[in-house]
Amino acid sequence: MEAVKAYDLELQLRQLRELRQALELKMKELEYAEGIITATKSERKIYRAFSDLLVEVTKDEAIEHIERTRLVYKREIEKLKEKEKEIMKKLAELRA
Amino acid sequence: MEAVKAYDLELQLRQLRELRQALELKMKELEYAEGIITATKSERKIYRAFSDLLVEVTKDEAIEHIERTRLVYKREIEKLKEKEKEIMKKLAELRA
Amino acid sequence: MEAVKAYDLELQLRQLRELRQALELKMKELEYAEGIITATKSERKIYRAFSDLLVEVTKDEAIEHIERTRLVYKREIEKLKEKEKEIMKKLAELRA
Amino acid sequence: MEAVKAYDLELQLRQLRELRQALELKMKELEYAEGIITATKSERKIYRAFSDLLVEVTKDEAIEHIERTRLVYKREIEKLKEKEKEIMKKLAELRA
Repeated sequence: MEAVKAYDLELQLRQLRELRQALELKMKELEYAEGIITATKSERKIYRAFSDLLVEVTKDEAIEHIERTRLVYKREIEKLKEKEKEIMKKLAELRA
Repeated sequence: MEAVKAYDLELQLRQLRELRQALELKMKELEYAEGIITATKSERKIYRAFSDLLVEVTKDEAIEHIERTRLVYKREIEKLKEKEKEIMKKLAELRA
Repeated sequence: MEAVKAYDLELQLRQLRELRQALELKMKELEYAEGIITATKSERKIYRAFSDLLVEVTKDEAIEHIERTRLVYKREIEKLKEKEKEIMKKLAELRA
Repeated sequence: MEAVKAYDLELQLRQLRELRQALELKMKELEYAEGIITATKSERKIYRAFSDLLVEVTKDEAIEHIERTRLVYKREIEKLKEKEKEIMKKLAELRA
């Protein structure tokens, strides 16, 4: 029974980590995009993807989108880290 | 045997919910895109993705696509909600 | 033992079907794109996605890509249908 | 017990292979893109995807991105091949 519980907790932990890493990757990509967009003097065209449509956005709209998304991701990543800690604590107790 | 049945129903329920949430997200994204496309006076270029090809579409074509897709998604979301209800009913009966 | 075998075959069948349906969807999308590209007199800009890069292509390049991809998908879909038939035959034998 | 171990190793092997094939496909796509970008005299517009934003990049930036990404993928593919070999060795020992 405890082996099943531990297995289940490990599975949850792995899913939380994968989700967190996916968010961290997206955040890094958006930060990289912001670097490119703001670094150059010459204007670059920018599109934002909405499902299967790409809509042209201005530099300012893109930067605002990045800043807002970054905040959302940061909060989400913090929440996931908290959940990971809780599960690791449960796993440690189970194995003690 | 009943535990297996309940587990199977819960799995189905989770899959239906994930599918519904994915559709709801796509619908929200398209609605957001429509907001941007229709709000501004200045024209924005728009592309539509078809597999690995992106083809430029006009504002009117994009709006028509969004409206049509929204109807399809709405119907699909309603169907999924019905299926979810059925499964939740079955689960309640199984646990009664 | 036979229940396990049948379960395994059903799983394979479902995976083959999902793969086939995904290919059929991509083929339909490319055919739709071809319809749009060839129907209009006014030129539309077209991009082709290669991993995380989008590269502008001409109308002729896009049509050639669609034609070639359609042939590849058709062959692949035929192969998958054959495999599905074989598995359905095995399942029928198992249940006979 | 050994059947479970073998099953687990086979699962790991399949996941490693899928990951490697996905990387090989992305690498091939980027190489194809490079061929198109460098072959033609006429300039093509190019965009790079960062999460849900597409940012216009120059031909030189695109080529630099492809070269850098190719190196990263090559190293990663080599690592995955090594891991696959190790697991195949373990599987052979288990079955001997």
